[in-house]
Amino acid sequence: MPQPSNQPDFSLGANGLLPAIAQDVSSGKVLMLAWMNQEAYLETVSSGYATYFSRSRNTLWRKGEESGHRQRVVEIRIDCDADTILVVVEQTGAACHEGYASCFFRVLKSDNYTVDQPQVVDPHSVYKADSSSHRPTNSG
Amino acid sequence: MPQPSNQPDFSLGANGLLPAIAQDVSSGKVLMLAWMNQEAYLETVSSGYATYFSRSRNTLWRKGEESGHRQRVVEIRIDCDADTILVVVEQTGAACHEGYASCFFRVLKSDNYTVDQPQVVDPHSVYKADSSSHRPTNSG
Repeated sequence: MPQPSNQPDFSLGANGLLPAIAQDVSSGKVLMLAWMNQEAYLETVSSGYATYFSRSRNTLWRKGEESGHRQRVVEIRIDCDADTILVVVEQTGAACHEGYASCFFRVLKSDNYTVDQPQVVDPHSVYKADSSSHRPTNSG
Repeated sequence: MPQPSNQPDFSLGANGLLPAIAQDVSSGKVLMLAWMNQEAYLETVSSGYATYFSRSRNTLWRKGEESGHRQRVVEIRIDCDADTILVVVEQTGAACHEGYASCFFRVLKSDNYTVDQPQVVDPHSVYKADSSSHRPTNSG
């Protein structure tokens, strides 16, 4: 069996992108899943703040650059296959562009997904009204 | 802005596959990331045990079917875009085929990834020697 790389192996991801999970260091909540290419990963490591690759905008996405809801990196992990990244972060504000602490604010109850988390910030207060078309989603 | 689906939207994933994160209900650890197609998702919901789609074997992967290290579903969440699934589970044994509780057993320290978790089971005791070529990895 080939030994996995001791670094994230971006050649394993479609278009050089690997899934990156952000987890809150305080609550343990899984906050979001986004994507990193090597450039985003290296910037995450060097800057100490989570940086993703926005697939919709086809560019680096410095999480919180507009909203201020940055993610300070506490630790970075890779999985056994070196094809998924886990970033443990200190989240400012809300990870989710809809104002929830986590993007996973809906839970399955009797065949339907129901919101069971409070909004911690008003999403309208975060993004300027005229920039809504540029508002990043969790997957960029 | 289009409203996200109130069910996982498998049309959003390449080849109908969405990333699925498994999180341990007791420890809060992120255990692994794998992939689900609609069939795997529906079986996860109906059986109450995490079922993924193995990209390498191109078939459903009933996690723990061989090893016994099954994942009993406690709750299922979807993210704001309905394109990522979070399965909170009760993990039997070890999630990782390498014998670690979590696949994310390596952490970045000074430019290198270092194992900082104990193996909780002997991986050689889990899989039969003659079946190692069929041993699932975390991403299937």
